[in-house]
Amino acid sequence: MVRILIALGGNAIKQAHEKGTKEEQMHNCDVTARQIAKIIKDDPTREIVITHGNGPQSGNLALQQDIAKAQIPAQPLDIVGAMTQGQIGYMFQNRLQAAFKAEGIDRQVICLVNQVLVSRDDPEFVGENASKPVGNFLSKEEAETLKKEKGWIVKNVKPSAEKGWRRVVPSPNPLRNVEAETAKILVNSGVVVIASGGGGIPVVETPEGYEGVEAVIDKDLAGACLADSVSADIFMILTDIDAACVNFGKPNQEKLIGEVKYPKMEEYVKEGHFSAGSMGPKVGACMRHVEKTKKRAIIASLEEAVDALAGKKGTHIVF
Amino acid sequence: MVRILIALGGNAIKQAHEKGTKEEQMHNCDVTARQIAKIIKDDPTREIVITHGNGPQSGNLALQQDIAKAQIPAQPLDIVGAMTQGQIGYMFQNRLQAAFKAEGIDRQVICLVNQVLVSRDDPEFVGENASKPVGNFLSKEEAETLKKEKGWIVKNVKPSAEKGWRRVVPSPNPLRNVEAETAKILVNSGVVVIASGGGGIPVVETPEGYEGVEAVIDKDLAGACLADSVSADIFMILTDIDAACVNFGKPNQEKLIGEVKYPKMEEYVKEGHFSAGSMGPKVGACMRHVEKTKKRAIIASLEEAVDALAGKKGTHIVF
Repeated sequence: MVRILIALGGNAIKQAHEKGTKEEQMHNCDVTARQIAKIIKDDPTREIVITHGNGPQSGNLALQQDIAKAQIPAQPLDIVGAMTQGQIGYMFQNRLQAAFKAEGIDRQVICLVNQVLVSRDDPEFVGENASKPVGNFLSKEEAETLKKEKGWIVKNVKPSAEKGWRRVVPSPNPLRNVEAETAKILVNSGVVVIASGGGGIPVVETPEGYEGVEAVIDKDLAGACLADSVSADIFMILTDIDAACVNFGKPNQEKLIGEVKYPKMEEYVKEGHFSAGSMGPKVGACMRHVEKTKKRAIIASLEEAVDALAGKKGTHIVF
Repeated sequence: MVRILIALGGNAIKQAHEKGTKEEQMHNCDVTARQIAKIIKDDPTREIVITHGNGPQSGNLALQQDIAKAQIPAQPLDIVGAMTQGQIGYMFQNRLQAAFKAEGIDRQVICLVNQVLVSRDDPEFVGENASKPVGNFLSKEEAETLKKEKGWIVKNVKPSAEKGWRRVVPSPNPLRNVEAETAKILVNSGVVVIASGGGGIPVVETPEGYEGVEAVIDKDLAGACLADSVSADIFMILTDIDAACVNFGKPNQEKLIGEVKYPKMEEYVKEGHFSAGSMGPKVGACMRHVEKTKKRAIIASLEEAVDALAGKKGTHIVF
């Protein structure tokens, strides 16, 4: 009985060139769901927890809310996050049910609305440290107006572009998955659970309970946090890249296929082999999992998921 | 050990005069959550499943999507329903956690993304039978344009008003809660479950699985359907009215406080005591529960929930 936490990249839901219609997104979720069904078919004792990003969906929703703000109050980021959990959760749940039916897999699927605890003392909440760009690209003038009007932190994230500015929000470290115990009850019963969508709804602890904050938690880090809480044996990031590379983009580029020991991977990290914008956070989340749990983390492509679990594909980080 | 399914009216989330900011809705959810905590405090063995409406939230979201449609594709009603399940589920979950903490109640809370099966053969899908108004009020011209452009069914629901037209969508009968078994696992473990929000995401069965449809299921009927699936002992509708009335608005108006036997209530229904727009669907959902399960249904006000469960308040329909 192996318990696997699968973290899905944005391409599992909306491709960069797509607009984000229901049909497009349902199709992508369907392709992903069929791969996950194969993972279970391959070994029906596997217990599965799924998490996913929500960048394109929350971006679209925030923009819709902003365009309509004269008539309808726009909701803050915690609510937007919750709404995309419902949206994406439904699409995956629906497509996983169909994929399971096609493969003759008798397993229930459920998406949980899910909060993740962060700390107000996280450096990301200090001054202008916030690092996660959200929403659409802005001109310098637009950015400065929004900074004044809404108190947003704005940064020039693409200095070469005319509209290179974006709102940035804190991306604090996930400390604890608030509803992990509930997720565990379900996983223990064989239910395939979708949780911590979009990195989870970020909340801070207050004397009276939890309070939503304007932040976005990295979904891979939140996935590693959840993997620990539900005692997952394997933390697997499925993306459109088949492995982490050293010397990426250089003549001596080398794909890391198979097992890499934690200390070796730590060296690679220190040498700066993994870029901050793409492979870096994925490797970081895997390192967190391996260090904390002494268990396996895998980075592989969605198409090669089954082979990756057989040890034949993907980058495996082990203690 | 008594299992109670609580159906909450729209006023539990957004009051008619409010715009629908996060603060307003969190406040209303908080008030409701404190009543639910009292129900558990009153008898800690009580098992609770909660369902709720989503009319104002889905209306706001659909309008935001419509206003922004030139830039971002608007999502159909099943997706809008899923998004409001995330939104409202998060707010209730968060406020219930706080209310439980305040009362020293050690119970987990979770909102499930949840589909409800309907039939394509439901009369509501036939011709122009659709009966559920959604979205904002339109002029005759606006309504006719949208009918042509989008194939919507539009009806003049308020003939006295200048803008008396609205889109109407099918409100089919809920046949089965797709994720009821998962909900049951959690309720059996003592978790307070929020499910079937907004009547559930309406889906039809296809050879390959389930497919979302443009419809809105009555939340009280969907609640009765879920009550049956999770073997609830009591189906309780909490609203802003303290009981069903016979001869409503007449000099001989009489509140039905206490137990009314099913056959007697059936007579009242046939005599037309309960209006189609407000008390009628609530009584109808209760009748469905009592007829199907031979168990108790209650209509009471949110404030009197504890007394209603003690038999001192509200309308109780029994077999």
